[in-house]
Amino acid sequence: MEIMQVMGRLVCTQRVDGLGHMHLRILRNNAGKQLVAVDPVGAREGNWVFTASGSAARFACPDPNTQTDLTIGGIIDYWLPDG
Amino acid sequence: MEIMQVMGRLVCTQRVDGLGHMHLRILRNNAGKQLVAVDPVGAREGNWVFTASGSAARFACPDPNTQTDLTIGGIIDYWLPDG
Amino acid sequence: MEIMQVMGRLVCTQRVDGLGHMHLRILRNNAGKQLVAVDPVGAREGNWVFTASGSAARFACPDPNTQTDLTIGGIIDYWLPDG
Amino acid sequence: MEIMQVMGRLVCTQRVDGLGHMHLRILRNNAGKQLVAVDPVGAREGNWVFTASGSAARFACPDPNTQTDLTIGGIIDYWLPDG
Amino acid sequence: MEIMQVMGRLVCTQRVDGLGHMHLRILRNNAGKQLVAVDPVGAREGNWVFTASGSAARFACPDPNTQTDLTIGGIIDYWLPDG
Repeated sequence: MEIMQVMGRLVCTQRVDGLGHMHLRILRNNAGKQLVAVDPVGAREGNWVFTASGSAARFACPDPNTQTDLTIGGIIDYWLPDG
Repeated sequence: MEIMQVMGRLVCTQRVDGLGHMHLRILRNNAGKQLVAVDPVGAREGNWVFTASGSAARFACPDPNTQTDLTIGGIIDYWLPDG
Repeated sequence: MEIMQVMGRLVCTQRVDGLGHMHLRILRNNAGKQLVAVDPVGAREGNWVFTASGSAARFACPDPNTQTDLTIGGIIDYWLPDG
Repeated sequence: MEIMQVMGRLVCTQRVDGLGHMHLRILRNNAGKQLVAVDPVGAREGNWVFTASGSAARFACPDPNTQTDLTIGGIIDYWLPDG
Repeated sequence: MEIMQVMGRLVCTQRVDGLGHMHLRILRNNAGKQLVAVDPVGAREGNWVFTASGSAARFACPDPNTQTDLTIGGIIDYWLPDG
């Protein structure tokens, strides 16, 4: 899973049925690339999140047939070195 | 999901049955690379779209057994920062 | 799906059963990297083809359990800008 | 599967249900990129591990529906050239 | 599928059950990166092999639930240009 930051939301009136009513978020990865993800956790602009890709992206949605390959899995509070 | 721009359409008379009659589109990603996607939403040249890859690409098609690893998921109207 | 050119064929007497009798082709992508794909469409050296990766690569084969992650999906005739 | 080193653990109070109570680890790959993985083997900071991605990441968890695309598969003791 | 060279074997006493007793091999791809694969074909150090990734990696194993995302699919004898 990758660490990304939320940049905003995407408005697409014409889209495939398989996305249902899921909100689409613009994320930026550590290489500066902008990606689109569905957001079942309610992240906000500026939040650091981790994302799941591939078939795991579907399992994170209420409907696992959702046509997504990138889903926000959680909002990062902080991280700690062990010990 | 990635953001790409539609460049044109691809003509392939000799192709696998698993693509059915789906139209094939040439897309260009943000690195300038040309990719091929199926298009269930009716995008046109110049449109900015977002795409789904992997198994999600199949779920976006009328027949989820369609042999595609890249499908146009929607046409982008605009995007907004939060708040 | 990606655009690649056919370079030749690969000979492997010792290989997993899951590939059956499928022919193996050497392809070159636009970064000059050589990849191996199965070929259900009968492409020839020099042909420009598009390929499907991931689970879609299996659906393009007569037996969807074929152990491949890259399959030639069609031979490109030409491509056209819209309008 | 890739070789990575464990850097610490990630704390996320707000996350999708599909991750259950799995611990989240920060890993660093050989390009210096930080990634997030679930850890069913009990790796510690500084350990060198190998990871599985894609659907294989799910099969390594007690619940194969776990929403992960990266899972630690084992802790590396050492590696040997053949013969 | 990618072309890689076998470098040695990996010893991991602590690993997930999903790998069973499969041998783990260290491979090097054409960018010099070291990867870990399971080996159902009996490749030896120095052999050039091709590998399958993703879900195809599992289908190449005796147990398709094996937790691998990279499996050696065959040992390369040689390759030929067409015609």
